[in-house]
Amino acid sequence: MADLNVLTICGSLRKKSYNAALVRALPELAPANMTFKAAPPWEKIPFYDADVQEKGFPAPVEEFAAAVRTADGIIITTPEYNWTIPGGVKNAFDWVSRMPPDKQPFKGKPVALQSASQGPLGGARMQYHLRMCMTYLGCDIFGLPEVFVMMAQNKFDKETLKLTDETTRKIVSQQLEGFAKYIERVKA
Amino acid sequence: MADLNVLTICGSLRKKSYNAALVRALPELAPANMTFKAAPPWEKIPFYDADVQEKGFPAPVEEFAAAVRTADGIIITTPEYNWTIPGGVKNAFDWVSRMPPDKQPFKGKPVALQSASQGPLGGARMQYHLRMCMTYLGCDIFGLPEVFVMMAQNKFDKETLKLTDETTRKIVSQQLEGFAKYIERVKA
Amino acid sequence: MADLNVLTICGSLRKKSYNAALVRALPELAPANMTFKAAPPWEKIPFYDADVQEKGFPAPVEEFAAAVRTADGIIITTPEYNWTIPGGVKNAFDWVSRMPPDKQPFKGKPVALQSASQGPLGGARMQYHLRMCMTYLGCDIFGLPEVFVMMAQNKFDKETLKLTDETTRKIVSQQLEGFAKYIERVKA
Amino acid sequence: MADLNVLTICGSLRKKSYNAALVRALPELAPANMTFKAAPPWEKIPFYDADVQEKGFPAPVEEFAAAVRTADGIIITTPEYNWTIPGGVKNAFDWVSRMPPDKQPFKGKPVALQSASQGPLGGARMQYHLRMCMTYLGCDIFGLPEVFVMMAQNKFDKETLKLTDETTRKIVSQQLEGFAKYIERVKA
Repeated sequence: MADLNVLTICGSLRKKSYNAALVRALPELAPANMTFKAAPPWEKIPFYDADVQEKGFPAPVEEFAAAVRTADGIIITTPEYNWTIPGGVKNAFDWVSRMPPDKQPFKGKPVALQSASQGPLGGARMQYHLRMCMTYLGCDIFGLPEVFVMMAQNKFDKETLKLTDETTRKIVSQQLEGFAKYIERVKA
Repeated sequence: MADLNVLTICGSLRKKSYNAALVRALPELAPANMTFKAAPPWEKIPFYDADVQEKGFPAPVEEFAAAVRTADGIIITTPEYNWTIPGGVKNAFDWVSRMPPDKQPFKGKPVALQSASQGPLGGARMQYHLRMCMTYLGCDIFGLPEVFVMMAQNKFDKETLKLTDETTRKIVSQQLEGFAKYIERVKA
Repeated sequence: MADLNVLTICGSLRKKSYNAALVRALPELAPANMTFKAAPPWEKIPFYDADVQEKGFPAPVEEFAAAVRTADGIIITTPEYNWTIPGGVKNAFDWVSRMPPDKQPFKGKPVALQSASQGPLGGARMQYHLRMCMTYLGCDIFGLPEVFVMMAQNKFDKETLKLTDETTRKIVSQQLEGFAKYIERVKA
Repeated sequence: MADLNVLTICGSLRKKSYNAALVRALPELAPANMTFKAAPPWEKIPFYDADVQEKGFPAPVEEFAAAVRTADGIIITTPEYNWTIPGGVKNAFDWVSRMPPDKQPFKGKPVALQSASQGPLGGARMQYHLRMCMTYLGCDIFGLPEVFVMMAQNKFDKETLKLTDETTRKIVSQQLEGFAKYIERVKA
């Protein structure tokens, strides 16, 4: 099996974010040939403004796009804000979507989605909006199983934020295993 | 009829934005008792970060929220980015949604949506995501008619960006008239 | 307080349906001035076909529409099938939506949504699609609180299908109380 | 190139349906190795009812599922009713989704979507709900280009219902060519 280098994009900035904690849990739950690298910080990207774009893509946008381009697959792990995608991480997608067709970083990239929340739905509403966004960006979007970490406050260690819930660990493992096969299958 | 003061929120930062141009067209298309004021700039709001929030809501968030609170109704006029809500303006909603229940600015506010784009769908996909977001924020959301300004490049004067398309002017007028009645009807 | 006669529409045909059981629980959880009546059976309506419509609306469509027209409010209680609205009950909406503008039964009707499922999300995904549908039909759509009965198999008595879960009973009561106020508030 | 046998599912029953006319236009716009067969009639399937299912899947459901199983790819061409999926064709998906995991007909099937409408949006709102549904059913869903035939009354010959609009013919051709490559690429 080929090595699969996966870029992780985390939608939360909070230090004790459950989504960030979920990202940190991925390596131990992944197939042996899958490695992970965090995307460059989207919080350094200014708000999208076409007038700014005219003067050139800001460096943090170029860095974000470059990291996406070199990945074999992408995992987006993000909270849901107000039943849809957080504005901050969405802003990064808004910028890179303006690149010329031959430089579109997400085009043809396999992508899988995850979300964690302290509520009962685990970010489910957001994931379908994100699927729409990633369809437009030209991704191949992984289907099932979905990963929704509901009631996240009960599923991570209070101190270390290690993912301790066995059911969640199992479904994340299943998703990563499925995603590895999906990447192999759909790559052009 | 009571005076209705409506706050406008524009989702685009571009100087020659068709959405901004649509906002500028509202006063001449509105019922006589409806006046408009632009929301404080959302682009001054930092990306949402719960760690920052712990130290207090940044001043631009408080200003944005205060303007929403004093309005009789809200009109959000925004482009669609990547089939959903632009990250920048969404970030403002993400911040104010964290305010305590009794200070939630959008709660019980009548809101109407508009969008303009240079493509054939006029931002239609985005509006349903925005409806979900505004439902969570507790708004009373105006229904029909919807305003989608498709192929906006053909509907505004190239130089002045004045809204010249008669069909569009008519539907915007109808929406504003309907929205005025809706505000009167649903106010608690 | 005026009497509020509410029409219930149940999206499931199964005899032991949890959604039907939820509808049966409504009277004891509702404000004193709210009474309930079941909609005429949508399963007697044929599949929508414009060629059939040309010869006249079938009697079961007219009966369904008439019941909607005379209600003060509507509650739709339905499972989610394949992440969206069940085809059967949707077919009833498809038919009545073809009536002439002055006979549109749902126009201006306050509507509230509920769903029960045996999975962890309780039908949440479906409700936002149903909100879109009902917006087009011209309803005034009740916002919060939402009613999702997740893991329904644990919340109803195994024998009698009586709604026994106290948390669920409370949220349903809150929704019905809120809906009663909403009906009063938005009626033209 | 291998022969690709594609099953077409049309969401409209109307004899002069623009969606049906679009399906009839596919062979002449498709790559040489792609052939088309119409799905068995979904209108013979009763409304989904778990109590009926207990006695066995009705014959028209089995026929519909069998046709899906033997196809190399699926094209769903359907109108939008009330901003979402028509109830009738959705009912067919609801039935087959209840089959045991190893008999799920849509699992792993490449699917592409098309819609035609007489309005300006061409069914766009519906397609994202259908994408969600087909994701749950386990399909590999083709992304871009999308086919929305807006203002369909102007794009087909009034008498013969032949697809005459050149722009539409071109985009349909592009979708079919892309879909052929996608089928080859994603097949397990």
